[in-house]
Amino acid sequence: MKIAILGGTGPQGKGLALRFAAAGIDVALGSRDGERAAEIAQQLNEKQPEATGVISGADNRGVTAAADEIVILAVPFAAHSATLKAIKPDLSNKILVDIVVPLADGDPKAVDMPAEGSATEAAQALLGDGIPVVGALHNVSAATLNNLGQPINCDILVCGNNLQAKEAVMELISSLGVNAYNAGPAVNARCIEAITPILIRLNISKKVPFSHAGVKIWAPDH
Amino acid sequence: MKIAILGGTGPQGKGLALRFAAAGIDVALGSRDGERAAEIAQQLNEKQPEATGVISGADNRGVTAAADEIVILAVPFAAHSATLKAIKPDLSNKILVDIVVPLADGDPKAVDMPAEGSATEAAQALLGDGIPVVGALHNVSAATLNNLGQPINCDILVCGNNLQAKEAVMELISSLGVNAYNAGPAVNARCIEAITPILIRLNISKKVPFSHAGVKIWAPDH
Repeated sequence: MKIAILGGTGPQGKGLALRFAAAGIDVALGSRDGERAAEIAQQLNEKQPEATGVISGADNRGVTAAADEIVILAVPFAAHSATLKAIKPDLSNKILVDIVVPLADGDPKAVDMPAEGSATEAAQALLGDGIPVVGALHNVSAATLNNLGQPINCDILVCGNNLQAKEAVMELISSLGVNAYNAGPAVNARCIEAITPILIRLNISKKVPFSHAGVKIWAPDH
Repeated sequence: MKIAILGGTGPQGKGLALRFAAAGIDVALGSRDGERAAEIAQQLNEKQPEATGVISGADNRGVTAAADEIVILAVPFAAHSATLKAIKPDLSNKILVDIVVPLADGDPKAVDMPAEGSATEAAQALLGDGIPVVGALHNVSAATLNNLGQPINCDILVCGNNLQAKEAVMELISSLGVNAYNAGPAVNARCIEAITPILIRLNISKKVPFSHAGVKIWAPDH
């Protein structure tokens, strides 16, 4: 199985690539600069020689085309719309997983949502109903992803309007050893994306004894 | 210390009253019908004779006036605005804790936010800047609160624009044996209130092995 990660050369994208490769999934790492993506892919493979998944790199359109089915969008929100427009022709029969959080300009402790309500909804509007968009992986810290010795300390809330697409994405995410939950339709991304700046606020606060905390769904009998 | 809980005769209000009384805090339970509130207060006291806090009951305005400082609003969203208007004259020098979630009419798996963005923001707009509003306790299940033998299985995200008021509320909530976190300004209630229908959706789903789950902030080294 091969997935694509666009904007894969950022800390979130690199961390996800390492985790998926460790789980035996091939990753095509995308960037606007394909050569840079290829270099970083090589570095990531060297970091984790025991991984059974292979990381390769190319430009965003190339890796989108190379993905079997699932394409993860991990660019900063400033590049969200432009990247989606560029790869739209390559997305037929694929699922776009949007992990982008529209953080406010200059303030990572706040969101600045697009007119559609959330990044996930904006992506779905831009791509049209023929290409299912699934929102997921918004609340995982890049530090956690890149700290390969440690399990991922959060659950993943997955939303979107297409159940089959959500189920495929939840299965993929489960390969990382985390719980992925169906958190309802795309409109719920307004909540799920906005959890990230609340976590950032907490994690940089001097009032708490932790950093890089995530969110877990916790039943009474845990 | 005496707090008020308005709409205190609902499952959420009753559960909170029992928990605070067990923690040694006196509770004035409010309802539109003061006699009914007094009856229910008596029943709650009998349920928990070892509690060091005493629960009394009266009408919403009466209990608001009786509270030392903190007044918790636990009415259904349909009664949110009318209740606030009724008690506004009694709120000077007090803190209004808004735990109300604007669930969509007929669908507890969705929110239907007011024009202000959230219940907490609507309350702050209605009461004016002189009365601090703190959003909190949105995501605790009533079943959990009323299951007195068990600890509360979630953390509490607290938001609002007045830091001093938030700190007073966080200290109060800590008496329940839970972690209360400063989750930023009132605008973050748009996210925090919307977590509740996501939890309701999960908790009624046949795909998960639990019910009454809440949300915990989870650090990597937990």
